Amino acid sequence: MTHGHPDIIIQGGTLVTMVDGQDPIENATISIKKDTIIDIRTSGGKSPSVEAGEVIDAKNTIIMPGLINSHSHAAMTLLRGYADDLPLNQWLFEKIFPAEAKYLNEETVYWGALLGCLEMIASGTTCLADGYFFQGATVRAVHRAGLRGLIAQGIIDFPAPGVGDPKRNLEIGREFIQRWIGFSDLITPGLFCHSPVTCGAKTLSGALEISRNYSLPLQIHLSETVDEVEEIQTRTGRRPVQYLADLGLLNHQLITAHSVHLNMAELDLLLDKDVKVVHVPESNMKLSSGVASISDMIKIGLKIGIGTDGCASNNNLDLFEEMDTASKLAKVFTLDPTSANAETVLKMATSWGARIMGLESLVGTIEKGKKADIIIIDLERPHMVPLYHPISQIVYSANGADVRDVIVNGKILMKNREFQTLDAQEIMDRVKLICRRMKV
Amino acid sequence: MTHGHPDIIIQGGTLVTMVDGQDPIENATISIKKDTIIDIRTSGGKSPSVEAGEVIDAKNTIIMPGLINSHSHAAMTLLRGYADDLPLNQWLFEKIFPAEAKYLNEETVYWGALLGCLEMIASGTTCLADGYFFQGATVRAVHRAGLRGLIAQGIIDFPAPGVGDPKRNLEIGREFIQRWIGFSDLITPGLFCHSPVTCGAKTLSGALEISRNYSLPLQIHLSETVDEVEEIQTRTGRRPVQYLADLGLLNHQLITAHSVHLNMAELDLLLDKDVKVVHVPESNMKLSSGVASISDMIKIGLKIGIGTDGCASNNNLDLFEEMDTASKLAKVFTLDPTSANAETVLKMATSWGARIMGLESLVGTIEKGKKADIIIIDLERPHMVPLYHPISQIVYSANGADVRDVIVNGKILMKNREFQTLDAQEIMDRVKLICRRMKV
Repeated sequence: MTHGHPDIIIQGGTLVTMVDGQDPIENATISIKKDTIIDIRTSGGKSPSVEAGEVIDAKNTIIMPGLINSHSHAAMTLLRGYADDLPLNQWLFEKIFPAEAKYLNEETVYWGALLGCLEMIASGTTCLADGYFFQGATVRAVHRAGLRGLIAQGIIDFPAPGVGDPKRNLEIGREFIQRWIGFSDLITPGLFCHSPVTCGAKTLSGALEISRNYSLPLQIHLSETVDEVEEIQTRTGRRPVQYLADLGLLNHQLITAHSVHLNMAELDLLLDKDVKVVHVPESNMKLSSGVASISDMIKIGLKIGIGTDGCASNNNLDLFEEMDTASKLAKVFTLDPTSANAETVLKMATSWGARIMGLESLVGTIEKGKKADIIIIDLERPHMVPLYHPISQIVYSANGADVRDVIVNGKILMKNREFQTLDAQEIMDRVKLICRRMKV
Repeated sequence: MTHGHPDIIIQGGTLVTMVDGQDPIENATISIKKDTIIDIRTSGGKSPSVEAGEVIDAKNTIIMPGLINSHSHAAMTLLRGYADDLPLNQWLFEKIFPAEAKYLNEETVYWGALLGCLEMIASGTTCLADGYFFQGATVRAVHRAGLRGLIAQGIIDFPAPGVGDPKRNLEIGREFIQRWIGFSDLITPGLFCHSPVTCGAKTLSGALEISRNYSLPLQIHLSETVDEVEEIQTRTGRRPVQYLADLGLLNHQLITAHSVHLNMAELDLLLDKDVKVVHVPESNMKLSSGVASISDMIKIGLKIGIGTDGCASNNNLDLFEEMDTASKLAKVFTLDPTSANAETVLKMATSWGARIMGLESLVGTIEKGKKADIIIIDLERPHMVPLYHPISQIVYSANGADVRDVIVNGKILMKNREFQTLDAQEIMDRVKLICRRMKV
């Protein structure tokens, strides 16, 4: 040990590092100093030879990188189960948009986002890419929770919550970035263009320019529905990917969520431009948007991420369920049970997810020198026995409630399922009060 | 109260009875005497006026019927994660069948089934339709756990575990029924023909005759894969449904699991004959078998059940995840977000499931006079807040770990997530020991 006593030692579990080609390490000992992983070894059952501020007994657990949710709208917890099983336009225009217009403000978004953070911690997510309105409130919530995140202000060419006149869209977006850039090592601000349909060419170009100036990622919903593709074709004579290409948007800092209706030429172009593609399977299923061809994406070498979307269309933020569904949906969609195997979908939620966010040098794997974003999964549960292959167990058997401990940037956020940074009861009570008014 | 003091009173939750047309009852009080629900009322917040052996505080919970798993192979917990992501024939013929042949016996099936029961209790399942080998061991496990079940001896025209010469198939099946019929009010023995491909016409007819003689349900895998349909067509010139019809198998006591590759004429015939059809979505996805058209089934009036299959192809027994997936898969398969709404898939796992098992007069809804098979869902969890629609919350947000209490036939099997009838640690340790030998 070369850096003095570690602050935290995790000892005794099966370590899944998610470093390419590395097998699980039995009986691992991981040492953390401040925010950083400073040592990893197999202890061979021996006790660690150094003292530490805190020793976490990880016997009968899997130790793995925290999960990365590459597409969320955290504050939409407020609309969890608000309207389900409706035709898409009725759901959106009669339920979700009116509720957002009426009830979203700095306070409601703050508590909604905090509930989202609470749920993410409880289910092992340590990092999120989020887009919504009143995102200053979301930054404050994510900061209070201690999570890592890319938090983006929503841009849409309608009168939006907290924006009003859409002409002020980009200005408010720029102000958001100026306000929050450098605020915290863990939080990156940015912009989120709602879609190529709801943002005009001028808005898209403006958002690109601001993102470029600050060298920040730009998020967008892309080719989510057939209607979107057809609308863009009617308007521009091109499919959405080519339309964005011609506007200069396709680059390594563009993050495209949903990405359902894409042909092989479009996938090749996205790969060529190093665009970051995010799969959102449960929302795509629940809203009947379609099935993204992740098997093709993986085959050509796209390192895609995975996200939950917001709770109005999922209705939870559990990435374990999302991984399980991603794999099974790809298998039945291709009629090939080798599609999207367990290791691949776990990469989507860890190492590839980190790449989506531009954070691959910091997180996404457990390696010496990386930030300590680590979760510990309890194996002493009926549905986690027996254990033949740790990665299969994580993807196909586990759910979020199996996460026992959560560490982000060296700080323990959940320990034996007790939240260490957030008052769960207060947050749930606040959201209940807010949502009582919203009752449908 | 007309029957004297109740043994158990459940008080204060939101009651979802699953009786057709009945809205959730707020602040419900449910009285149980012995094995039976004797009274249901809304307390209006008042304390119950009678004493009871046990009062369960259900504030901030949903009270609902126990879930019914209409297709399982409980002891296959032994093979959870044993082999994943493989081509179907390699998975089955190089991994699963050899492992079953080598390692299944009375003892291993007993502990595997007991682990399955433990997992079902932990995730709110109170009743199962099970088919496997060494099913005397499964009967003993289900009985020890206190669950309700239809436990069927597997029939297959190969040398099967515990059977040996396939000529003894039917004889061993008949002996199984004779041994266990009348053994317990909660357990119904029966036969499970593996499939129309793996059981010849003579075997199918023989199993039908035995089932008829005892007036017992007969389970079968039907039209699970395209290969099965083609093989039967080649052999018999007919598709599997017509083939079974001609053998006389289509009747109200036939339970067909998977039921993937069925055309409208076949669905109409199954409806006409009152055949009990079971949807097994996650296994059908993971094995790339295909997508069953449950939207069509529901439209024509088939009251289908839902099952998890065994843990080699799922890999857990969580019916909450299964309901969520069933709904979302139907929505994306039909490209209609109103398909398989939350209430419908919850019926599949409760009232319709009871009908599948022939137990609709006893369980599947919470009504005065029915058996007390009841589960209580904790709402004080981040992902269960806010609560707009209880049934949406159950289907789209909850998972098995949200089940707090489980009652079967008036007996408490789990209380505050503590098992009351089973020693979880012993069962998990036994299965670990067994499976260490099976390590691949």
